[in-house]
Amino acid sequence: MKLTALVMAGGRGERFWPVSRERCPKQFLSLTDDGETLIQKTVRRLLPLVAPEDVYIAANAAYSGLIVAQLPEIPPENILTEPCSRNTAPCIGLAAGIFAKVYGDAVMLVLPSDHLIRDTALFCEDLRTAVHAAESGSLVTLGIPPAYPETGYGYLHCTPGEGCCKVTQFVEKPPRETAEQLVQSGKWLWNSGMFVWRVGAIRAALRIHQPMLYAQVETIADAWGKPSYADVLAANYPALPSVSVDYGVMEQAEDICAVPCRFGWEDMGSWRALERIGDADPEGNCLHGDVVTVDSTGCTVSGQEKLIAVLGLREIIIVDTPDALLVCSKHSTQDIKKLTAALRLQHRQVL
Amino acid sequence: MKLTALVMAGGRGERFWPVSRERCPKQFLSLTDDGETLIQKTVRRLLPLVAPEDVYIAANAAYSGLIVAQLPEIPPENILTEPCSRNTAPCIGLAAGIFAKVYGDAVMLVLPSDHLIRDTALFCEDLRTAVHAAESGSLVTLGIPPAYPETGYGYLHCTPGEGCCKVTQFVEKPPRETAEQLVQSGKWLWNSGMFVWRVGAIRAALRIHQPMLYAQVETIADAWGKPSYADVLAANYPALPSVSVDYGVMEQAEDICAVPCRFGWEDMGSWRALERIGDADPEGNCLHGDVVTVDSTGCTVSGQEKLIAVLGLREIIIVDTPDALLVCSKHSTQDIKKLTAALRLQHRQVL
Repeated sequence: MKLTALVMAGGRGERFWPVSRERCPKQFLSLTDDGETLIQKTVRRLLPLVAPEDVYIAANAAYSGLIVAQLPEIPPENILTEPCSRNTAPCIGLAAGIFAKVYGDAVMLVLPSDHLIRDTALFCEDLRTAVHAAESGSLVTLGIPPAYPETGYGYLHCTPGEGCCKVTQFVEKPPRETAEQLVQSGKWLWNSGMFVWRVGAIRAALRIHQPMLYAQVETIADAWGKPSYADVLAANYPALPSVSVDYGVMEQAEDICAVPCRFGWEDMGSWRALERIGDADPEGNCLHGDVVTVDSTGCTVSGQEKLIAVLGLREIIIVDTPDALLVCSKHSTQDIKKLTAALRLQHRQVL
Repeated sequence: MKLTALVMAGGRGERFWPVSRERCPKQFLSLTDDGETLIQKTVRRLLPLVAPEDVYIAANAAYSGLIVAQLPEIPPENILTEPCSRNTAPCIGLAAGIFAKVYGDAVMLVLPSDHLIRDTALFCEDLRTAVHAAESGSLVTLGIPPAYPETGYGYLHCTPGEGCCKVTQFVEKPPRETAEQLVQSGKWLWNSGMFVWRVGAIRAALRIHQPMLYAQVETIADAWGKPSYADVLAANYPALPSVSVDYGVMEQAEDICAVPCRFGWEDMGSWRALERIGDADPEGNCLHGDVVTVDSTGCTVSGQEKLIAVLGLREIIIVDTPDALLVCSKHSTQDIKKLTAALRLQHRQVL
């Protein structure tokens, strides 16, 4: 069956401020040292499986220029612009409707644009396992064996099977203690937010579990390829409910499977991700740029040409850019949105 | 009796790195918001008492240009250049020898160049009290009623008198517990490092307690005003022992007096001084420049045009300059020299 992909690039990446900015969110930046941006990595690791003309990118219209510039291999007409952000269910629902018109049925990979994958070959292998399960009609999610009791992810309870296993329960963002139990039990996987399904299967699930949303995205998808598309999109997309595909579909649907993945995964969710992907020094400091540390442990520093001198610090994150400097506790990285909200109130240009 | 002054500007100001640099140490910088440098403040608050032609500045020859530029009122020939740093006793001894040649006897004020004084009028009043005591032959030190149990200062035990009191004991840099006891007793003053004495009195004390040093500085002072002075200075000054006037003279001499001073004093010894002289916000943050704080308390931030965003921090000091950024714990400010030592080993230009 035809293999297609939807890469979701709608995020604002606020928790990576001040490197990630509204005009260029993190998915369009290289947060590693190799110069390749997160979205370039996301698309290019797909290309062994999916032809570039079958890869679609969903993002705010403001980012079309960045997408064209960073991904010249993708036809510009494959950019599905979002007039506004409405979470994953509307984005996926609209893409599924468009794919139905373009391809009839097909297997559809759904991938966020800000994940890091260590082993691309294993990634393709695991994807093939997922595609195989999806072809038989399952809604397949890529599950990640949890590395630590993260409280910001969803957890999937799995009945072990051959490669692909049936998901029997979801737990969304558990409290610390629960997360520790889930990790210890060995029977739960992180929900990576990467999905594989037949276009027909996800549309059927949407029609059952999100009938209003389904009807609305069908209206827009019906205009795909017509001169009226932009107007129909602008008129209808903002009215869609903001709901995630996890909550709106996956937690309610039958026949949900997970492939336990082996490829080494990191979602670049906050500055703390850098310490998991980077090489730490013997004191546990993860340093980029011109940095000198004395009596300091567990710090993450991202600088540029300017010398950054760090003295007597524990678990502090320092991110320097030409027009803004962030210094924050490692325990506050989820609160960077408080900071950007404060800056927004002040109408600051650095956002 | 003629009133003269020696302003000591030999410090490297390393604990104020990265604002204070080798080529322009803190005494030549304005660390407050009024634009006047510390040495300008030091000299100008003396001028109601001492004529500018009777004010001498001791500093490394490298800083002569800064002194001439910042203090045009001082005759350039009053700059006593030091070929190298040898602490306060040699510096004061040489100046006293030169003053003896120039003035015969005189009262000599000795003042570090990096102190902040809140009330200049009270400062002049207290100085007049000290001058009065010095005229009768005492070695007078300006004592500061201690504001908190600082462990980095010397303490003077005083027998209360009229304005000027006899110093009966010295305690140099006591451990925390001792410092707390001294402050609580109410009978001890901080040794400010500001002194007043007759030229004859300090020379006599040096001759008794530091006879070698006395003979060496006399050799140099004998050449004052002669073409050979620079050569004699260069040949003899480096051989002088590095000893403080507190340890080498004051702790050993008879007839030491202290004037308990009321003028509001701060030695700009480390970045922590900023929180004592600055206005803190309700969370105890002392902020200079374009700074936004969220969930942070007790932080001191010194920035410039660039936005500095501070999130979830407790008692952290952030100092941003165009070519170097310091982030350090408030409890590590005395260790900035460890940092500058590490940078010196790397032959860094930012020192």
